[in-house]
Amino acid sequence: MSADFQNWATSCQARIETFLEARLPAIDCVPERLHKAMRYSVLGGGKRVRPLLSFAAGELAGADVVRVTSVAAAVELIHAYSLVHDDLPCMDDDILRRGKPTCHVEFDEATALLTGDSLQTLAFEILAEKRLTDGPESQLEMIAHLALAAGSRGMAGGQAFDLDSVGKPLSLPELEYMHIHKTGALIRAAVMLGARCSSRLNDEQLGKLDHFAKCVGLAFQVVDDLLDTEATTATLGKTAGKDAENNKPTYVSILGISEARELAQKLQCDADQVLNSFGEGALRLRQVTDFIIKRKF
Amino acid sequence: MSADFQNWATSCQARIETFLEARLPAIDCVPERLHKAMRYSVLGGGKRVRPLLSFAAGELAGADVVRVTSVAAAVELIHAYSLVHDDLPCMDDDILRRGKPTCHVEFDEATALLTGDSLQTLAFEILAEKRLTDGPESQLEMIAHLALAAGSRGMAGGQAFDLDSVGKPLSLPELEYMHIHKTGALIRAAVMLGARCSSRLNDEQLGKLDHFAKCVGLAFQVVDDLLDTEATTATLGKTAGKDAENNKPTYVSILGISEARELAQKLQCDADQVLNSFGEGALRLRQVTDFIIKRKF
Repeated sequence: MSADFQNWATSCQARIETFLEARLPAIDCVPERLHKAMRYSVLGGGKRVRPLLSFAAGELAGADVVRVTSVAAAVELIHAYSLVHDDLPCMDDDILRRGKPTCHVEFDEATALLTGDSLQTLAFEILAEKRLTDGPESQLEMIAHLALAAGSRGMAGGQAFDLDSVGKPLSLPELEYMHIHKTGALIRAAVMLGARCSSRLNDEQLGKLDHFAKCVGLAFQVVDDLLDTEATTATLGKTAGKDAENNKPTYVSILGISEARELAQKLQCDADQVLNSFGEGALRLRQVTDFIIKRKF
Repeated sequence: MSADFQNWATSCQARIETFLEARLPAIDCVPERLHKAMRYSVLGGGKRVRPLLSFAAGELAGADVVRVTSVAAAVELIHAYSLVHDDLPCMDDDILRRGKPTCHVEFDEATALLTGDSLQTLAFEILAEKRLTDGPESQLEMIAHLALAAGSRGMAGGQAFDLDSVGKPLSLPELEYMHIHKTGALIRAAVMLGARCSSRLNDEQLGKLDHFAKCVGLAFQVVDDLLDTEATTATLGKTAGKDAENNKPTYVSILGISEARELAQKLQCDADQVLNSFGEGALRLRQVTDFIIKRKF
């Protein structure tokens, strides 16, 4: 990873942290326990991959970084809510997240439930409260886009499909279907919302960018599956080896390690090819893609 | 209840049912189990009190009924999501809702969790996807309004406050604080969003309407507490006597039955007084208020 990219990523991460720190209700704001749990679940951790994608796409589109920060925070809040609910006993029943006890372990199940609920709500509040696009109509489109990506035909739908397929053999197309929804939809939203903070890109360019985001979303998941097999709990900051333990179908269980690695590389090539048509403006997107593929946690 | 009001309420309920029936993803849309659970939790039941308030406020403001239907559906979906999550074992652990098994009993806990999550998301999708106000800026304000009403400083916050106060003695102001958030915020949003589908009411009138909605929201809760004490499970369609059983503070436990009845009447008087300043246009709001106070379930 180049020092230039490292500096840029660190500054984006600091920007999103500062925004979320200020925007999440304070710990002394009633109900204190809920607000403490919301802050616990969002602040001070995570790679912020989705925000990095929003910032990089925003740069490509020449968007105002203040607008992109709000959009990136909204996407990250949807991601954070999904993790809090995913970790609950009735879902993955996980006790470790980002190297800390999960929300329901640190607080309690009811608080974790309301925490996830409230983080989702806050995401939409942030997308509606300030002007984030050149015209208010496109901001409404943004909100509809995020809702579609997060809901029952997007992320939550992918999770439901995942639940239904535990212990079942999935074909590669079924596995792909699941991940396009479960993680892919929100990653695509991160890219598209970042770009749509400006109106510079035309529909054809936005279409290309969406194809790029689809490749990156799948690549992200393939790498996630590889890391779950190869990395340790300490490195990941979450329980490693859960998928195999839970008999969950993954790219590794279906393709094997070496073919899964090849697939990740192929998806990176496809993504890079799209970015080449954007020229130099796509530098950050290229770097974030590389970071996603080569990450070790 | 007059036949005229009964007809109007029935037609509003049919309108909201038709909208939700068409707008919720079909049962054969993947993931089928999640979509089945969403429809199960929303369709074919409930008094639709919040939609009735939206329609009545929309009539006062002379708003387009098609717009009001979307807004009313969004508010009802937030309400439905909160019921599904409230009924979960880690919250109220209830098995009966609207005369049927609760979502997690009929399906399973994980599905109920994702159902609530997805119903919330759908509410925001509906508020963003079509033009619902005279200008798009006011539609963004509507979305922010609903998010504020539903989130950690609104409905979800009231639920968290409720959790924190089980088994504790609450003062009347604390109980009021809890209900202003837990049920009041969404009832106010139902009224205000209905009215804001048109731009006819000025800020002073909207302020009055908000005061009306605050009175109705509290009255709704006082009556709810009375019904929980006095009615049977069969009439309510949900488990009666739960509050006393769970040692939850209620208007009845703090004030006693007869003072609680007086409070409900006083709140109705306050609400009616506000409506008088609107003249004949407020007929439906007056009738819905009366329906809320006098309901038996």
